[in-house]
Amino acid sequence: MRCEVIAIGTELLLGQIVDTNSSWIGEQLALIGIDSHFQIKVGDNPDRIEFCIRQALNRGESVICCGGLGPTQDDITREVIARVMGVELRRDEEMVAKIEALFTKRGRVMTDNNRRQAEIPIGGYAIPEMPGTAPGLVCPLGSKIIYAVPGVPHEMRDMMRGTVLPDLHRRSGQTAVILSRVLRTWGHSESGLAELLGPRIEELDIIGNPTLAFQASGIEGLKIRITAKSENDDSAEQIIAAEELLIRKLLGDLIFGIDEQTMESVVLKELRNRGLTLAVAESFTGGMLSTRLSAIDPAMEVFRGGSISTLIGEGQANEDLAIAAAERAKFEFSTDVGLAAVAPNADDNQLPGTVYFGAVISDKQYSQRSSVPGDHERMRDYSVISVSNFLRKTLSSG
Amino acid sequence: MRCEVIAIGTELLLGQIVDTNSSWIGEQLALIGIDSHFQIKVGDNPDRIEFCIRQALNRGESVICCGGLGPTQDDITREVIARVMGVELRRDEEMVAKIEALFTKRGRVMTDNNRRQAEIPIGGYAIPEMPGTAPGLVCPLGSKIIYAVPGVPHEMRDMMRGTVLPDLHRRSGQTAVILSRVLRTWGHSESGLAELLGPRIEELDIIGNPTLAFQASGIEGLKIRITAKSENDDSAEQIIAAEELLIRKLLGDLIFGIDEQTMESVVLKELRNRGLTLAVAESFTGGMLSTRLSAIDPAMEVFRGGSISTLIGEGQANEDLAIAAAERAKFEFSTDVGLAAVAPNADDNQLPGTVYFGAVISDKQYSQRSSVPGDHERMRDYSVISVSNFLRKTLSSG
Repeated sequence: MRCEVIAIGTELLLGQIVDTNSSWIGEQLALIGIDSHFQIKVGDNPDRIEFCIRQALNRGESVICCGGLGPTQDDITREVIARVMGVELRRDEEMVAKIEALFTKRGRVMTDNNRRQAEIPIGGYAIPEMPGTAPGLVCPLGSKIIYAVPGVPHEMRDMMRGTVLPDLHRRSGQTAVILSRVLRTWGHSESGLAELLGPRIEELDIIGNPTLAFQASGIEGLKIRITAKSENDDSAEQIIAAEELLIRKLLGDLIFGIDEQTMESVVLKELRNRGLTLAVAESFTGGMLSTRLSAIDPAMEVFRGGSISTLIGEGQANEDLAIAAAERAKFEFSTDVGLAAVAPNADDNQLPGTVYFGAVISDKQYSQRSSVPGDHERMRDYSVISVSNFLRKTLSSG
Repeated sequence: MRCEVIAIGTELLLGQIVDTNSSWIGEQLALIGIDSHFQIKVGDNPDRIEFCIRQALNRGESVICCGGLGPTQDDITREVIARVMGVELRRDEEMVAKIEALFTKRGRVMTDNNRRQAEIPIGGYAIPEMPGTAPGLVCPLGSKIIYAVPGVPHEMRDMMRGTVLPDLHRRSGQTAVILSRVLRTWGHSESGLAELLGPRIEELDIIGNPTLAFQASGIEGLKIRITAKSENDDSAEQIIAAEELLIRKLLGDLIFGIDEQTMESVVLKELRNRGLTLAVAESFTGGMLSTRLSAIDPAMEVFRGGSISTLIGEGQANEDLAIAAAERAKFEFSTDVGLAAVAPNADDNQLPGTVYFGAVISDKQYSQRSSVPGDHERMRDYSVISVSNFLRKTLSSG
């Protein structure tokens, strides 16, 4: 089964907004085994939108239109779909009442334009999930199918997860279930991981199920996605669990988390479990480590504070300096753990990308010399995840 | 003149990479008055890429292919363009030598695959700009034109700026020059700005040149883009300068910068001009302010340090607390200026989104109560730009 994605909106073509929706949709389609060969951006022009929908239905079985469901005159996705179907729009009075209730709840007055949002091509129906005021649409056309979802990402995702993806999967006639899990790693390059997993990758090339895919994702780690296909959720889950176990045996603590777990979330959880609080000292990372920690722990219950400074006049950067900075952060914020990342000044004649990490946990000191890419931006990114990884490994070995 | 953009790569369809290239290209095309009605993502499949190129040339005069110029077997853009043109590829020996020299310079060995990159469809030529090892292509086909640029963003941009955009502009037969300038503002909503500029917007609707467009860009400010069309650079520049002057009269110091100037870069420049150093105290912004300041000033010559803490046990958040935090940062890092942003705890019964800014410049204290959106993420973003804006305005009024 094939499904094209049409992202609708002149602002997308003009580059005022980057189309991240179709990327997300493409990823989700792949996960349920549906091919998306073309993804198109088109402006708010009825003839061109119509052309794209017709073309998609000619070369495939389904199409998802994303955007153009709002209340303004520019929002014409409903009208164009009705035109492609050769039907009129009908106003759904239940939907009008639903939208009106949403407006009342938010203390706003509904306009005639918002009533337009309750118009549905005859033969189609509204998607039950409706996190905003724009209803999504499911519009069958013969054996083919047109979906319309709003351009607001979280509204689009709710409708995709709740209705569009299950409906597409059912229509695809696949009885197979496809599940996937991401293992996040840090410490080895893609080729390094491929080498460690080499024999297993060769086996899987023959077996064909599950599959493994690598994806370098910067500060989010190097991801390994396990995708399994089976007749039901339970057996797919079993395949994934068995593969995860096998990979964990080969990679050990290179794996720091799964799916949406960031390095910082893993470290903070570990600290919380042990009842420890954390303070950090940053220099060249300039606040990035603190920003990522505080984003997860807004109340700052575990991550209690950070200090950013140049460490100028404190001598040559080395492991001792990193430990001293960690000690100071621990003292300043009265925490159980202090963590620091420092780097030499440009005039220090050390190799670009040389960094030093220090950690103090209660009364024990740990340090590490490490090497990251030497350009400023990647040096920051790589050091933020690497110093957190250093603390993670220190905690688990301690 | 019309130009479609085709972003090539299966990883784009699978959502492993978001296609930001075509957004940037779309923006640049609009700025030189070229319509881009369709922008397409397609996988590494020769038939489908060929289909997209042919379709683009049928419904327009030009097409830009982005990606698929690398050395691997997946990179087939060169072959497909040759097929569309009905010609063979020829190996450009000068280009081979050029690529080989690049490899030698980087201490790497050139492979046969890299030699493939020097193949050019007969009748086409290589784009002179070549920041990486992948040459871009200009391939005329009758009166129409196919361009190919790499998917690596900075390589693509160099080639677009150096060759593709000027060539397209020349081919479009437009003698007009289109220039634009962005004025960045902070402190008013889009509707607020539209009100202040109301009479001028009405005038411009009639005159038609220059045009104004608004774009809310979160932490980057609310942008106003002035676009002017004229017969040459000088006169277009004059139109923009006159319009900027007029808008500055109406908006005053709501405008903090132009084009790529961020709020932090403007503040740091102002401090540097006055010979002042800065330290910050952050709480709920968690390090974001420091991160943005240090990104611009990696040597930390002006921005000397930051401290992030909960400020727990320091009493109710108010303007005095913000000033005290600013004083402490100034003292701790021995700077001329201290700046702080604080917010009440959840149990403090203040309105969500209430924040307090404090600044100490030499021996003078300043503070402000402000209101930002109450959700955690936007509260952080808006406060980072708002507190920098507070310092900017305090400096200029002092």
